[in-house]
Parts: sequence; C-alpha cells; structure tokens
Amino acid sequence: MHRITVEYWTPADPAAFDERYESGHVPLVRALPGLLSFTLTRPRPLGGDAPHLVAEMWFADGEAMKVALRSPQMAAAAEDAAGLDVASTTMFAGEVDEAPR
Amino acid sequence: MHRITVEYWTPADPAAFDERYESGHVPLVRALPGLLSFTLTRPRPLGGDAPHLVAEMWFADGEAMKVALRSPQMAAAAEDAAGLDVASTTMFAGEVDEAPR
Repeated sequence: MHRITVEYWTPADPAAFDERYESGHVPLVRALPGLLSFTLTRPRPLGGDAPHLVAEMWFADGEAMKVALRSPQMAAAAEDAAGLDVASTTMFAGEVDEAPR
Repeated sequence: MHRITVEYWTPADPAAFDERYESGHVPLVRALPGLLSFTLTRPRPLGGDAPHLVAEMWFADGEAMKVALRSPQMAAAAEDAAGLDVASTTMFAGEVDEAPR
C-alpha cells in the first residue's frame, strides 16, 4: 500500500478546526481518484508532542498515488487545506511495508 | 485499529541507522505482545520535511495497545531506540478510524 500522510499541528482553535476540517475538507479528500481508504487519527503524545490530527490517504500502489497527487481534486484539497488555521503541517508520502520478520 | 507511531528524523548516518535499526531494533519490536502488524515507511517529503523512517505498531484495540505499552518488551525496545543516532524522534498513539463518508 502507498500512503500520503498529512499531520496538522497545534490548531489555533481545535474545535473550530475540527468542524471546518470535517464539514469542508473531508469531502474534498474523498473526491480524490483512486482513494482506497481515508483514515483519521487524533493521537496522544508518548513522551513528546503529537499532531492534533493525522490524515492518511491510502492507495493500491505508487502509480495510483501519483495520479491522485497530480489530480485537480488534489489541487482543490490543497488549496482548502491552506486555509486551515494550524501552526504547521507536515506532509509526506511513501510505501507502507510490513517490517522484516 | 489502534496504532503507535514512531518517526525518526534526520539520522546522523542514514545507512548506519538503517542497518542498526533492522538488525537490532526490529526484533525487539516484533516481540511486543498483541502486535498485529509492524510496518515501516521511508517517506519522501511533499513540500516540506519528512521523517527518515516511520515505524508503526498496529493493535486490535486500545486495551491491547495499552498492554504492549506497559510491557517489559516495550521497555527493552525503548531503551534500544534511545541509542539510535537521530536528531529527534516523534512518538504518539491513537485510534485509526475511517473518515466520514
């Protein structure tokens, strides 16, 4: 599986962020071509800081992820995300592999 | 599913980190009680910085994750991870849920 991860750190107003994210941003992500799954995690830190929200977009393979990254739907989602009031955003992509046994 | 995420940022020597992580650290993580899956991602950044390695430990539920976090195997893995030569480590835990449709 391939995955795009977006971490949202330290929203100015967490409740307002959550409301705007779920009502405005989630539908834009759901529109991405080739999206197999779209998962959200609100983690707690383990001995340090944690993002407020981790959003993950899962794809069957690297080609499907590349198509999504280059799509107009991704451009619309990115434009919307730029309006989310957070201190920082971390975004990266890669293949998720089972570790050696 | 519940998940513990550990991000390793900016190893001093990436090749040496990878060798030590895979030969020394992976077996300690594999020994965790209740571990359903242990995945590794070496992401590329999308417009910012990305961790060198993202390690994820997956559990059936929050109780299983709690047992693992409190286990002697986790203490051994954490002690070993403290010897990994990275600029920083981010560690957090939470429930991974499918976003609203």
